[in-house]
Amino acid sequence: MGQNIYDDPEFQAGYRRLARSEEGLAGAPEWPSVRALLPDLTDKQVVDLGCGYGAFARWAAESGAALVDAFDLSEQMLARAGELTGPSAPITYTRADLDTLTLPAAAYDVAYSALVLHYLVDLSRFVGMVHGALRPGGSFVLTCEHPVYTAPTESQWIEHDGRRSWPLDRYGEEGVRVRDWLAPGVRKQHRTLGTLLNTLLDAGFTLRRVLESVPSPEQVEAQPELAEERDRPMFLMVAADR
Amino acid sequence: MGQNIYDDPEFQAGYRRLARSEEGLAGAPEWPSVRALLPDLTDKQVVDLGCGYGAFARWAAESGAALVDAFDLSEQMLARAGELTGPSAPITYTRADLDTLTLPAAAYDVAYSALVLHYLVDLSRFVGMVHGALRPGGSFVLTCEHPVYTAPTESQWIEHDGRRSWPLDRYGEEGVRVRDWLAPGVRKQHRTLGTLLNTLLDAGFTLRRVLESVPSPEQVEAQPELAEERDRPMFLMVAADR
Repeated sequence: MGQNIYDDPEFQAGYRRLARSEEGLAGAPEWPSVRALLPDLTDKQVVDLGCGYGAFARWAAESGAALVDAFDLSEQMLARAGELTGPSAPITYTRADLDTLTLPAAAYDVAYSALVLHYLVDLSRFVGMVHGALRPGGSFVLTCEHPVYTAPTESQWIEHDGRRSWPLDRYGEEGVRVRDWLAPGVRKQHRTLGTLLNTLLDAGFTLRRVLESVPSPEQVEAQPELAEERDRPMFLMVAADR
Repeated sequence: MGQNIYDDPEFQAGYRRLARSEEGLAGAPEWPSVRALLPDLTDKQVVDLGCGYGAFARWAAESGAALVDAFDLSEQMLARAGELTGPSAPITYTRADLDTLTLPAAAYDVAYSALVLHYLVDLSRFVGMVHGALRPGGSFVLTCEHPVYTAPTESQWIEHDGRRSWPLDRYGEEGVRVRDWLAPGVRKQHRTLGTLLNTLLDAGFTLRRVLESVPSPEQVEAQPELAEERDRPMFLMVAADR
């Protein structure tokens, strides 16, 4: 089983206080960009891979999706997702390790996976599985940590000659990065951008859009703490079609 | 007209001494990767956009291309390309500013452009023009400086806490970067990876492969000076099909 850091009490306590946890999709600065990658969900069958507290699943249901199958490894997050979801919503929450989950063939119109791929050990297996679970013409919309964010030995800004920068190194060295984020010892997988995109292509996907989380000047004015995201993108967002 | 830095005497003298100039394709570490992106050129009509000394054009002709139309802005490089090319090679060298060049519609099977896009001011116009110049099923294989290479305020490695890194900043700030490389005041255009790929998609291309210049451990052993390229990719390589 993959590392279940989201059920670590210290991690979970910290995660729960993030804006994206407290405010849901509205607390995620990249959400407007991600939303623009999604097709109309009316009457669609949707799978949410790494659903967390279920903010996307509920949004999909409110947007008219016929059903949403939502998976996550974290018991605590699934419990909270259940609490936040009304009984009539067409959402099924299921605990699963995405590194081993299999889904029925051609069962969904839309697959969504937010900020999960950088935890998965076997990306090819996962992407191939998602491709098989989509109907022809279906869409896979994903976000993950950007390769320039996952790559460095030290995952923090540095000051040099009076200028702040992001110390990029080890970009070409794919594999585990151990980070102290909310709790010590969080294991992430660094992959290059080429690997991420070519894994989608090799699975049979067509790339429709590739975006990076660069906040607009207007977003920075409204939330000055986002300014550093213009210096180094934190997230990658991809829309791929079967 | 775009900046014609390649005809600057200081720049040209320095450029002529680079391995990729003295040794041609064999002196470019990324060439094996680029070559693998190219279709079989036998009997194909090829256009080389930014041909420099003509190393690719000659390789394409030797590989069986029916004709190669090769364009460059630099008079000196075209003159040298002519000297290096045998009279029977089916290559036509033409001086042109790629920021304004137009090509006939559906005239080529393969378009190739190496390390030129980061000089072009109007990428959309250029990419749309290349798309129109390819026959349906044709391929565009391009290389350009990688966005993490073009982005920073200071384009050089730094030492911090005893560790060398590439000081990434201003990734989201697209536009001109003035560099001192071989000569002072070389003007390059920084664009994000999303912009580069989405410009191809918007022109109607299908992305087939996205690669980054990360030398293999074997390449680093043979050429230790390539080691830093594993820390920060210098080039992006894309194969796109019409």
